[in-house]
Amino acid sequence: MKVKSTIEQLKNRIAVASKRKPAELVIKNAEVLNVFTGDWKKTDIAITEGYIAGIGEYEGEQIVDATGKKIVPGLINGHVHIESTMLTPREFSKVMLKHGITTAITDPHEIANVAGKAGLEYMLNASDALPMNIFVNMPSSVPATQFEHNGAQLDAKDITPYFQNSNVLGLAEVMDFPSVANAEEKMLQKIASTIQQGGIVDGHAAGLSKEDLNIYMAAGIRNDHESVSAQEGKDRLEAGMYLMIREGTVAKDLESLLPIINEKNARRCVFVTDDMLLDDLVENGDIDHIIRKAIQFGLDPVMAYQMATLNTSECFGLRELGAVAPGYIADFLILNDENQVDIHQVYKNGKCVVDEGEINQSYFSASLTDANTLPKPCIQQLKTSDFSIQITQDYCNTIEIVPNKIITNHICEKVDIKEGKFVPSIDKDQLLIAVVERHKGLSYIGKGIVKGFQMKEGSIATSVAHDSHNFVVVGTSEDEMLTAIKKVEQLDGGLVVTKQNQVKAHLALPIGGLMSDKGYLDVYEDVLKLNHAAEDIGIPATFNPFLTLSFLTLPVIPALKVTDQGLFDFKTFSHIDIEVEKK
Amino acid sequence: MKVKSTIEQLKNRIAVASKRKPAELVIKNAEVLNVFTGDWKKTDIAITEGYIAGIGEYEGEQIVDATGKKIVPGLINGHVHIESTMLTPREFSKVMLKHGITTAITDPHEIANVAGKAGLEYMLNASDALPMNIFVNMPSSVPATQFEHNGAQLDAKDITPYFQNSNVLGLAEVMDFPSVANAEEKMLQKIASTIQQGGIVDGHAAGLSKEDLNIYMAAGIRNDHESVSAQEGKDRLEAGMYLMIREGTVAKDLESLLPIINEKNARRCVFVTDDMLLDDLVENGDIDHIIRKAIQFGLDPVMAYQMATLNTSECFGLRELGAVAPGYIADFLILNDENQVDIHQVYKNGKCVVDEGEINQSYFSASLTDANTLPKPCIQQLKTSDFSIQITQDYCNTIEIVPNKIITNHICEKVDIKEGKFVPSIDKDQLLIAVVERHKGLSYIGKGIVKGFQMKEGSIATSVAHDSHNFVVVGTSEDEMLTAIKKVEQLDGGLVVTKQNQVKAHLALPIGGLMSDKGYLDVYEDVLKLNHAAEDIGIPATFNPFLTLSFLTLPVIPALKVTDQGLFDFKTFSHIDIEVEKK
Repeated sequence: MKVKSTIEQLKNRIAVASKRKPAELVIKNAEVLNVFTGDWKKTDIAITEGYIAGIGEYEGEQIVDATGKKIVPGLINGHVHIESTMLTPREFSKVMLKHGITTAITDPHEIANVAGKAGLEYMLNASDALPMNIFVNMPSSVPATQFEHNGAQLDAKDITPYFQNSNVLGLAEVMDFPSVANAEEKMLQKIASTIQQGGIVDGHAAGLSKEDLNIYMAAGIRNDHESVSAQEGKDRLEAGMYLMIREGTVAKDLESLLPIINEKNARRCVFVTDDMLLDDLVENGDIDHIIRKAIQFGLDPVMAYQMATLNTSECFGLRELGAVAPGYIADFLILNDENQVDIHQVYKNGKCVVDEGEINQSYFSASLTDANTLPKPCIQQLKTSDFSIQITQDYCNTIEIVPNKIITNHICEKVDIKEGKFVPSIDKDQLLIAVVERHKGLSYIGKGIVKGFQMKEGSIATSVAHDSHNFVVVGTSEDEMLTAIKKVEQLDGGLVVTKQNQVKAHLALPIGGLMSDKGYLDVYEDVLKLNHAAEDIGIPATFNPFLTLSFLTLPVIPALKVTDQGLFDFKTFSHIDIEVEKK
Repeated sequence: MKVKSTIEQLKNRIAVASKRKPAELVIKNAEVLNVFTGDWKKTDIAITEGYIAGIGEYEGEQIVDATGKKIVPGLINGHVHIESTMLTPREFSKVMLKHGITTAITDPHEIANVAGKAGLEYMLNASDALPMNIFVNMPSSVPATQFEHNGAQLDAKDITPYFQNSNVLGLAEVMDFPSVANAEEKMLQKIASTIQQGGIVDGHAAGLSKEDLNIYMAAGIRNDHESVSAQEGKDRLEAGMYLMIREGTVAKDLESLLPIINEKNARRCVFVTDDMLLDDLVENGDIDHIIRKAIQFGLDPVMAYQMATLNTSECFGLRELGAVAPGYIADFLILNDENQVDIHQVYKNGKCVVDEGEINQSYFSASLTDANTLPKPCIQQLKTSDFSIQITQDYCNTIEIVPNKIITNHICEKVDIKEGKFVPSIDKDQLLIAVVERHKGLSYIGKGIVKGFQMKEGSIATSVAHDSHNFVVVGTSEDEMLTAIKKVEQLDGGLVVTKQNQVKAHLALPIGGLMSDKGYLDVYEDVLKLNHAAEDIGIPATFNPFLTLSFLTLPVIPALKVTDQGLFDFKTFSHIDIEVEKK
C-alpha cells in the first residue's frame, strides 16, 4: 500500500496525540493486544480522522466504554479470491467485516480470465470506497493455460500501469512453475516489472520440492499458500518464503501445518483462505474461524492474532495496518472473548461498522459499481445432439470425481453404446459432461464421461469453471443438459439445476458470469436452494456438486479433466480421446 | 532500497537455481544460519552475479570448502554517522567490511550541516560503487538549531528529489521533538514527503516519555536509537517503534536494554552504533562487537544475529538483504566461531572482500570521489585578544565537562581577573574555550570558561564540533588558542594539539573539515599521535578530549554549552552571560 497521509492529516493526528485537541473517539477500559510485544494491556485508544493518534490516557468527543472486552487489530486475509463467494466486492466486504476481517489481499484471477483489464478495473472500482481495505493484486496467469479458451490475455504491459494504483500491492500467485523455471520472457516480464515497481510477488508453489523453491525464490517470489504437509511448510519457511497457512472451504491445511510453528518462525507465518464458498463463509467465518481453530489446536492466541495481523502486514509492507498503535489506521475488533474470537464490534477507519453482528449499512451507500463494462457470455447456437458423444469403442476414459477435492481420478470403464453414441447410465453412474466455450461464441464443446455425481435424473450447470470459466454441465441426458445451458445463457451466467427438463433452482451471476448483483443473504438463500435441488436429483449432500464441477475444467490439476477443447490428461499434459484405443 | 533486478539478471539467477547453468561460486560444507527459522544447517550456497541463486546441493565454476565454518548473513548497522570516524565512505567501508558489516544505514547529518546539498551529494557519490551497501538517509535537522551558525539549510524541497536515489531509504533521525509536537510546517513537510515517497522516518526520541512517543508515532516516526534504560526500551517497543539498541563509543546502551528482550519482541530489535570513533572501531569493531558482547551477556546467538540482519532489513524494507537465501544479495560472513564473531572471510555481492582480516584492495580501485565541490572553511582574521574574555565580576558561569559524556554540568565559580579579563588557571583547572564561526567568515566568536580538561599547558582545537561544526578550541592561554586555530584553518579543518605555541600533533580533515582524505590506518596513526600529544599537555588518558570537546558546542544537550554566539544554557534554552550577576 502506498501510504498517503498528507501534512494536514499528520498535523491533526499530532494535535490529538499531544492532547491539544480532543480525539473524535476514545475507546476506554478494554485490554488491548500489543502485537509488537505480545502483551495485553488496559489502555485508552484515541482516534481521529480514521487513524489511531494515541494509546494511554485520552479524552474525546465520544467515549466508548469497553470494560471487560479485549481489543485486537482488524484481521487481514493474506490471499483470497472474492469471486469464489460469487459476491460483489461490496457484499463480500459485508460478510468479511462481520467476521472481523478489515483487510484482504485479493487476486481477481477469475474475472480477469473472463474480462481482462475490464475485469481488473471492475474489481478495483468496486473495491474502492468500501469500509474495508481490499487490495487487488495483478493476476499472473491470464490465460491460465493454452488448453482452453478464455476471455482475455494480460501481459506485463497490461498490468504494469496498475502498480501505480494505491490498492495494488504486487503480482498475485505465480502458478506457472514451468514458465518460471524455463525463464520464459512473458512471465519474467511480469515478475521483473512488479519487483521494479516495489511490488510483492506472490507464489503458488503447489507440490514444489525444495529445489524448485530455490527457483521461485531466485525469481523473487516470496510467499506460498499451497503447503499441505508439515514437510512442505518447513521447506517453504526454510527457503525464506512467508508460509501462508490456508484454511478454506476445500483446502484445509491448518492442522497439518500448525505443528511446525514455533516462537522462532511464527513471524514468517500468516493466515489465508484462498477460496471460500459463501455458505461456508457465512456459517463458519473466515480468518476469525482459522484463529479459533488454531487456538483450539493449541496455538498461543497471541501468536495466532499476530499471524492474522502484524505478520501479514509485514509480508506485504502495509506499514499502517496490522497493529493497534499510534499512526496506524484505526481498524480493530472489540471482542467478548479472544479465544473464541467472539466479536462485539468491528471498527474500520475508526468507525463502528459492525455492532453485535449487525452491519451499519450507512457505510455502503455509494452507488453500485457499473458492471456493464464487463462482457456478457456469448455461446454458439446449441441443439441436443451437440451434447452427444460419438464413439465406436465401448471402453472409455472416464473422469472419476473425488468429492470436495479439486483432483480427479483417471479411470477407464466399459460404457453403453447405442447408434454410435455413448448412453449415460444411472446404474453405472456414468454421466455426460460438456464444456461450452462462452467468451467469443466459438464452436467449441469439449465432452467427456464422468462418474461420481450419483445423479438420478436432471443436470447441473455453471458458468463458474476454473480457470477460463466456460460453461460446464453434467447431466443424465442431452436434453437436460441443453435445458441447463440455455438457462445459464439466459441468466448471463449462473448456476442451474434441472429435473425433468425444468429449471428447478438457479442463481444468476450476471457480473462476468461469476458474481451475483444481489445482496449476500439473497445469494446465500439461492445457494441453499441450489444445494437442495441438487440433493433432489440424487446428488449426496455429503459434497458440494457445484464446487466439484467447477474444478473439473481445470487442466493443471491431476488427473483427468475436460476443457472446451476436449478431455485433458494431466499425466501427458495433452488432450486425449474419450474412447480408449484397442490394444 | 529500491530493488533493481532486471529480467536478464532474473533469467541468469533462475538458470543457476535450476542447475541449467553452473554457479560462479559455491560455498560448501559450512553450517549456515537460516535467520527465518533460527536453525543452523549444513548446505551449499550457490552464487551468481552477486546474488544467491540456490541453497542445497550445487556445483559451480569455483568451489570454496568451508568445512568446520559457520556462515551468517552480512551484518547491518541500522544507524551510523560515517563522519564520526573522520574517514571517507571508502575508508569507512574498509574498516566496516573487516568487521563483517556489509550494509550501513547512514545519516550524513554532519557534512550536511557544513555543506548542505553538496555534502549530501558527496556522501552519495562517495558511497556508490563500494563493495558495501551504504544507504544515505536525508538529514532532518539542517540547521540543527537556531543558536549557532551552520553552513546550510535543507528543507523538504531540497531533500525530496533524493528519495528517487536507490541508496536513499528515508528521513534520518528526527530529533527536533518540539517542532514535531507543535506540528511545525517545515518539519512536517519533510516527514510527509518521506512517507509519501514510501520512505522510512527514523526517530531520535532521547528522553521522550510514553506520551511523547505517541506524538512521534502519530507523525509516522517508527524507530528510535536513544533508549538508555530498560524502561525507555520497553516504552518504545510498546509504542510500536523498532528498538535500535545502540552501543557506540560514548553511548553504551546494550547492557541496560538486553534484559527486556524476549522471544516475542526480539523481532522488533536491531543493533546500531550511532557514533564510533576510529580508534574504538579499529580496535573493537562495530556490530560484530555488539553481537559478541550481547552473547557474552547471555543473549541467544541466533537472536543476536537476527537483530543484526533480518530485523534491520525488515525495519527498512530491504527485501534483498539480511538473509542467506535464494534471491538475496550474496552478502555473508564465513566465521571460525559464531559466538566470538571470529571472521574468516567476508563476502559482498558474492565476492570475497576480506580474507583473514586482509581487505582485497582491488574492489576499491575506482578513482576517489571529488571533494572539491565542498566548501572550504572560512574564518575571520583573528588575533590573540579575540580569545580573551572581558569580565567585571569574578563569579562566572563555568562549563564542567563530564569525561566521555556529551552532557556537561553547569557550575558557577570564582575566577581570576586581571585588567578586566578572565585569567585561565591551571591550578583551578579553569581554561578558556572559544567557538569560531567557520562557514561564512562571520565575526562570531563565542567564548566561555571550562573545567575538567586538566590541561597543564598548550591547547587543543578541532573543526568537528556538533552539530554546526564551527572551530572550537580549549586552551591555557590566548596565544596557544590562536596557534591552534590558525593551524586548523591552514589544514582546511582538522584536529590540533599545541604546546609552547608549537603544533605538536595534527590531523587534517580537508573534506568539509570533518573527514580525512587519507587511508584509515594513516588516520588511525594520527589519532593515536593526537591522543599522545594531549596526554603530554596533561589531559588524562582516561578520556578522549577531542570527543568531549566536539560536544561542548551542542546546545540541545544539557547543561551548559558554547556556540559561536556565546555561552548557552540548556535549562533556559538561551544564551547567557559568562559572568554571574550580583544578587
